[in-house]
Amino acid sequence: MPTIWVLQGANLNWLGIRQPEIYGTTSAAELDARIRDHAREQGCTVEIHYTNIEGEMIELVQRAHTEQVDALVLNPGGFTYAGYALRDALLGVQVPCVEVHISNLHKRGSTSVIGIASAGIVMGLGLDGYLLGMDAALRLVAGKG
Amino acid sequence: MPTIWVLQGANLNWLGIRQPEIYGTTSAAELDARIRDHAREQGCTVEIHYTNIEGEMIELVQRAHTEQVDALVLNPGGFTYAGYALRDALLGVQVPCVEVHISNLHKRGSTSVIGIASAGIVMGLGLDGYLLGMDAALRLVAGKG
Amino acid sequence: MPTIWVLQGANLNWLGIRQPEIYGTTSAAELDARIRDHAREQGCTVEIHYTNIEGEMIELVQRAHTEQVDALVLNPGGFTYAGYALRDALLGVQVPCVEVHISNLHKRGSTSVIGIASAGIVMGLGLDGYLLGMDAALRLVAGKG
Amino acid sequence: MPTIWVLQGANLNWLGIRQPEIYGTTSAAELDARIRDHAREQGCTVEIHYTNIEGEMIELVQRAHTEQVDALVLNPGGFTYAGYALRDALLGVQVPCVEVHISNLHKRGSTSVIGIASAGIVMGLGLDGYLLGMDAALRLVAGKG
Amino acid sequence: MPTIWVLQGANLNWLGIRQPEIYGTTSAAELDARIRDHAREQGCTVEIHYTNIEGEMIELVQRAHTEQVDALVLNPGGFTYAGYALRDALLGVQVPCVEVHISNLHKRGSTSVIGIASAGIVMGLGLDGYLLGMDAALRLVAGKG
Amino acid sequence: MPTIWVLQGANLNWLGIRQPEIYGTTSAAELDARIRDHAREQGCTVEIHYTNIEGEMIELVQRAHTEQVDALVLNPGGFTYAGYALRDALLGVQVPCVEVHISNLHKRGSTSVIGIASAGIVMGLGLDGYLLGMDAALRLVAGKG
Amino acid sequence: MPTIWVLQGANLNWLGIRQPEIYGTTSAAELDARIRDHAREQGCTVEIHYTNIEGEMIELVQRAHTEQVDALVLNPGGFTYAGYALRDALLGVQVPCVEVHISNLHKRGSTSVIGIASAGIVMGLGLDGYLLGMDAALRLVAGKG
Amino acid sequence: MPTIWVLQGANLNWLGIRQPEIYGTTSAAELDARIRDHAREQGCTVEIHYTNIEGEMIELVQRAHTEQVDALVLNPGGFTYAGYALRDALLGVQVPCVEVHISNLHKRGSTSVIGIASAGIVMGLGLDGYLLGMDAALRLVAGKG
Amino acid sequence: MPTIWVLQGANLNWLGIRQPEIYGTTSAAELDARIRDHAREQGCTVEIHYTNIEGEMIELVQRAHTEQVDALVLNPGGFTYAGYALRDALLGVQVPCVEVHISNLHKRGSTSVIGIASAGIVMGLGLDGYLLGMDAALRLVAGKG
Amino acid sequence: MPTIWVLQGANLNWLGIRQPEIYGTTSAAELDARIRDHAREQGCTVEIHYTNIEGEMIELVQRAHTEQVDALVLNPGGFTYAGYALRDALLGVQVPCVEVHISNLHKRGSTSVIGIASAGIVMGLGLDGYLLGMDAALRLVAGKG
Amino acid sequence: MPTIWVLQGANLNWLGIRQPEIYGTTSAAELDARIRDHAREQGCTVEIHYTNIEGEMIELVQRAHTEQVDALVLNPGGFTYAGYALRDALLGVQVPCVEVHISNLHKRGSTSVIGIASAGIVMGLGLDGYLLGMDAALRLVAGKG
Amino acid sequence: MPTIWVLQGANLNWLGIRQPEIYGTTSAAELDARIRDHAREQGCTVEIHYTNIEGEMIELVQRAHTEQVDALVLNPGGFTYAGYALRDALLGVQVPCVEVHISNLHKRGSTSVIGIASAGIVMGLGLDGYLLGMDAALRLVAGKG
Repeated sequence: MPTIWVLQGANLNWLGIRQPEIYGTTSAAELDARIRDHAREQGCTVEIHYTNIEGEMIELVQRAHTEQVDALVLNPGGFTYAGYALRDALLGVQVPCVEVHISNLHKRGSTSVIGIASAGIVMGLGLDGYLLGMDAALRLVAGKG
Repeated sequence: MPTIWVLQGANLNWLGIRQPEIYGTTSAAELDARIRDHAREQGCTVEIHYTNIEGEMIELVQRAHTEQVDALVLNPGGFTYAGYALRDALLGVQVPCVEVHISNLHKRGSTSVIGIASAGIVMGLGLDGYLLGMDAALRLVAGKG
Repeated sequence: MPTIWVLQGANLNWLGIRQPEIYGTTSAAELDARIRDHAREQGCTVEIHYTNIEGEMIELVQRAHTEQVDALVLNPGGFTYAGYALRDALLGVQVPCVEVHISNLHKRGSTSVIGIASAGIVMGLGLDGYLLGMDAALRLVAGKG
Repeated sequence: MPTIWVLQGANLNWLGIRQPEIYGTTSAAELDARIRDHAREQGCTVEIHYTNIEGEMIELVQRAHTEQVDALVLNPGGFTYAGYALRDALLGVQVPCVEVHISNLHKRGSTSVIGIASAGIVMGLGLDGYLLGMDAALRLVAGKG
Repeated sequence: MPTIWVLQGANLNWLGIRQPEIYGTTSAAELDARIRDHAREQGCTVEIHYTNIEGEMIELVQRAHTEQVDALVLNPGGFTYAGYALRDALLGVQVPCVEVHISNLHKRGSTSVIGIASAGIVMGLGLDGYLLGMDAALRLVAGKG
Repeated sequence: MPTIWVLQGANLNWLGIRQPEIYGTTSAAELDARIRDHAREQGCTVEIHYTNIEGEMIELVQRAHTEQVDALVLNPGGFTYAGYALRDALLGVQVPCVEVHISNLHKRGSTSVIGIASAGIVMGLGLDGYLLGMDAALRLVAGKG
Repeated sequence: MPTIWVLQGANLNWLGIRQPEIYGTTSAAELDARIRDHAREQGCTVEIHYTNIEGEMIELVQRAHTEQVDALVLNPGGFTYAGYALRDALLGVQVPCVEVHISNLHKRGSTSVIGIASAGIVMGLGLDGYLLGMDAALRLVAGKG
Repeated sequence: MPTIWVLQGANLNWLGIRQPEIYGTTSAAELDARIRDHAREQGCTVEIHYTNIEGEMIELVQRAHTEQVDALVLNPGGFTYAGYALRDALLGVQVPCVEVHISNLHKRGSTSVIGIASAGIVMGLGLDGYLLGMDAALRLVAGKG
Repeated sequence: MPTIWVLQGANLNWLGIRQPEIYGTTSAAELDARIRDHAREQGCTVEIHYTNIEGEMIELVQRAHTEQVDALVLNPGGFTYAGYALRDALLGVQVPCVEVHISNLHKRGSTSVIGIASAGIVMGLGLDGYLLGMDAALRLVAGKG
Repeated sequence: MPTIWVLQGANLNWLGIRQPEIYGTTSAAELDARIRDHAREQGCTVEIHYTNIEGEMIELVQRAHTEQVDALVLNPGGFTYAGYALRDALLGVQVPCVEVHISNLHKRGSTSVIGIASAGIVMGLGLDGYLLGMDAALRLVAGKG
Repeated sequence: MPTIWVLQGANLNWLGIRQPEIYGTTSAAELDARIRDHAREQGCTVEIHYTNIEGEMIELVQRAHTEQVDALVLNPGGFTYAGYALRDALLGVQVPCVEVHISNLHKRGSTSVIGIASAGIVMGLGLDGYLLGMDAALRLVAGKG
Repeated sequence: MPTIWVLQGANLNWLGIRQPEIYGTTSAAELDARIRDHAREQGCTVEIHYTNIEGEMIELVQRAHTEQVDALVLNPGGFTYAGYALRDALLGVQVPCVEVHISNLHKRGSTSVIGIASAGIVMGLGLDGYLLGMDAALRLVAGKG
């Protein structure tokens, strides 16, 4: 049974409170429940980590490598704009990463500096993006991609 | 039963022939079969259109609106880089669009000029991206997004 | 009696449907009627062509030259942003062109790449811009400009 | 009977003398006569003001607001390139403004910094641009635009 | 008793009329009263000058130097964007200047070209910014800063 | 009695040691004393936090929201240049923020990436900037701004 | 006997009419005759295609691949500036392409976006460029290059 | 006997007071005396005008044309950076202009926007630049240039 | 006997695992042994610190100042690209810093934002760069530099 | 019998040694033999010069003018990127120049600063480019171009 | 009696031949005669050097220092655009340099990279610029500047 | 015994005279002595070459290849900013190059265009940089790097 880690970057612990007109009113805890349900349905193990500190996310990425996690579903949140160190960490591990953004970065004139280090990207599809990201990750793991 | 149109832009009829190291060896016909199978499994109607002419894709987008298609899954292909007229067409219709790119544009230093007009984007996940894009479209239609 | 061709570029066949908050709710057919009325009042012949394909507009421009049309009133629509080939076509004919934009491009941070090939430009004045463009074209023809 | 003010910016008092290959040989006084004739034909009141000082044009714009002028026809002349204060003045009044440029700015690689504050723009149509600008202003006033 | 001059640049005489959603509905006269009250409370002499002409503000700055004014509180208004000559005037006098902007320039994507010549800047705090600017100026004068 | 939190970003614990020609010789402890004295005089509660880790400041901002702090006075210090995650945190809370910089960023050719998320900004006024920032915050709270 | 296709992009059907000061007065038909004569002299088969529609040129490029044409001599004409989709088509076929421009793009401050997809480029040598391009193509085919 | 006008732009009336480390301690009056002496020696008539208002300098330039002044020696001062309207005025008159800058603009990373409208430029040579500018103007007048 | 601290930034704890084609297969522990051996040979005390959190490295830099360390040998790793806060910390201490990069940043199109705060830089020389950096640091300390 | 000079810029004496994956393994001497053979076949005189010093190539260009050489075939080699002085030399002579590059500059993201001074350009066609360049030069001389 | 060296950079030996519409028809020898006459009239010694090789001009600049030349009058010619090494040489000597350009660089959209290293600049005044440059140099030497 | 060539670019023969506040007062001859001493201590042969002409340095680089020099220690001096031809020469030889800069280019806002062609870089460490560069070169040669 494959293992996926969902990594949540800066400000994502604040989901449902922060700018609900962009990010919706679902809380982080409610999202976690949806992610866990989806993992159960898809037959995979999931672990969810939140951090507002880029260096801690780097260490989570390294630990995922050491613990032989099969794939990452990673929303960089506030690390989207200047997370070059996180980008290097992703380039340095063998674990494939599906990057998720709740909103469509193009509509805000932004781009992700870590995009170059991700296998694939899902954006603009709301919280469903996490579930689609998990599906994508499982397909990558199954070698169907 | 929702109806989805898959629109394939410039050079996508050439799938399996063109730059297989980036786009793989599956042909357009084989991809179509996978898309149709997936539609059957997910219980939706699908129509697939290919065109190398941007103006024809604009007309397909307009026709999708007129025929009350529920959602578009659209890979702009060669229109990615300067398809501003296509972007305006998408902004001018009520049909939500999930944009799909087979490869990860960030790795090629590119960006999509139509991204601003799409509801969501799926990229870098190979041909699976079409199936994930369809799933995303169905979720948008179901209002779960 | 002078002859004017009104050329309508990408997405203008969609008038009244597309982004009515910017472009209004008058349909293309209603606009055509206003243009024809105005031509009658001003004593000129008018022909109106719509196309979503840049190459077809190039051929209309060439045909206007061959058929000795006196002036063009041209709204590039979606060709505004990357219509370099259209720009070259306009530079290659003797028929003067008055470029019309329904909205004020400055307010959207845009600029017209074909502007350099037009005799004059009228923008931001709504559908009246077509009538003013025709007046301008007739003045150009009459050599009063 | 609507009232229109024609405001002439830096160097336009020099019309007919300055760079006649671009701006023609008609003097400012001759242009004024044409503008007054046209106002009479169109049934409107017109007042024409020239100034080479940006701050004076700002005050004319404010006075037009106070005196309930119906619309402005404004050629910024030398204020085209850095007239940000004039732009703010126009944004601060309710009087709609039609901006006129005698030549086509695109052919000189220029753009107007006040364009964002104008309702509409007429350029490249020579001195006729003023008459077309007045027509446009009257249409705006009549609510036909 | 220290003397402060409050200098108001282009369009600030229009306060309360211009873009009230950004600048509020208090008029220039009402602001002046608040400034004079505050000066009385803080025990300083104040003189307030408005001008829409950059060259006149340059002369006010020079006069402040000649008349040994202790500090300036200066809102450049419309001179914010291209007031390089005003910037040079400020660099050329010994009178310290506290620059005030009613709104937060960052939110409008702007920057002040005279900022480099000011001792300090207060922005985004509404009309209170003038009072805070006076307090800042008095602290500078008192050498407490 | 309103509560204000003063948040001090990267390197501000180093005050009085670091580049005294720019930041002066007052230590962080001495500044804290001045801030506390000023709070007492103005009748407000103040809490002061220092951190060199951006993610910790994000959590302080979130906590200020949860604990219903009335306003923030925040000097981003070293987070000024790339603190996009901090900017997003500020955009995600209801607590208004007055941003303070000891020196005038314009003189160093810098700009603050978090400026867009602050209500107002005070810069270049030395350590007095904190006291002015507190005054500004109290005015915001009192709804006088 | 090798087969070469000469592909002529936007506006090249207009040769001899359009901007003769840049492109000369030889018509497209006369050029075709020169190309056919040259092919006869060099012992190769030639086919010449004109199109003003980028998507049609993409299909000609694909067809050249399918029909095992030995080399392309291609003047993008108006597709020079934004023909990214054409560029991708050329990257997707095995047929080598010699790109021809009648004038020297450097003198007009332009560059070709499809240049990256051509084997070689010949520019600024007038209509002779086509004959030199054919020679170059034949050398490429003969493996002498 | 040729007539030269020396035009002094923004802040030059402040000479000797403003930034003496760059511009020296000679006052405007002392400079005028040197200029008048030099005119006497060189056998020409000179008139000197100062203004801090760009529009007034535009009118001086126009008046120089009307009064058939032989040449201008013009230091734009603060109009150096955004004096586009002044530039247009110079382009609109027949009087040749020698532009003078006391300091070397390159050392301050600046450039003159009116440079394109001047016959020649003398910079970085201190107040002597005015005398050299007069010599240059006289050579232009004498047709020796 | 001089004391040198070697500070290792983001991802350097991952040495030997991460991108071995760029960074080699030597582990961090093996590098540390080489550094300690070299310190013994050169007669200096060395302390080695790793951190993935920029704020922690700032505190190490401050502590090095407080503990009177003689020099730093610092590889910013992932802080190379946006470590502005770290740069300010280095500017704020008296301890000279030799910056080391294992690979040649120029070959990857990168530049170091902290370079401006280092005394010297050694790059592209592999792990030997640390030993050369220590030699350089000792020379700086000995005042031979 | 026309005379052509082939001028070889920086590093071209190193042909066959330098980056053979880009420039091939043919030596400069072997290339010279091919050029001489081709000249004999085409009935022209050829002289070949190599230099690594830009100033010497300028003098060769000037000498070609003085000695009435009919045309230049010039590969700038290392002067491609900053050879502005060479560009001016070419603009200053009457001898037409065909510029040759062995590789396709577009594929390396480069452009030639001397391109603006060449009659025509041949690039990306390997060493055959020299022979095609000679053919082009002879056509220019014969006035067939 | 002061000694001045006139240094002439790339392509200036070609004066009178090269682009006479810009640089006139006077030859280098005739210019030299005018320079020598002027030196005699002004009572100074002059030496004139021409070179097309930047490194040789660097050595002339160094030699001028060693031989205690009083001032340089230097026209960089073709070194204007990329002569950074020459700029460094000028920064490295004590001899003041007056830079001369025959034409007005602004009219050609150029700027001089060595300008930052010159005391003063004279441009656009034709060959008279050399004589004015000598006058300027003599004034610098006399300490009148 | 390995052989190293030290190559000194433009203006380095001027060491000790030029800008001593940046480059120190040690002369080139004194530096040479230090380099020779260091070579003796490290057991390698050294040859030192100075040139102010980029083309001569290119030939030295080529000769180093031909004479099988083991490594280069190269300070480009004035070739740092536009030495593209030198960069190509370095890319064309097998001899590894350690690039040395006496000062830290970052502090002057510069970057080296030849950096991409060097194995490693040492900068900002004064004249010691040459000795460290030699050590680095010897480590490269010994294959320890």
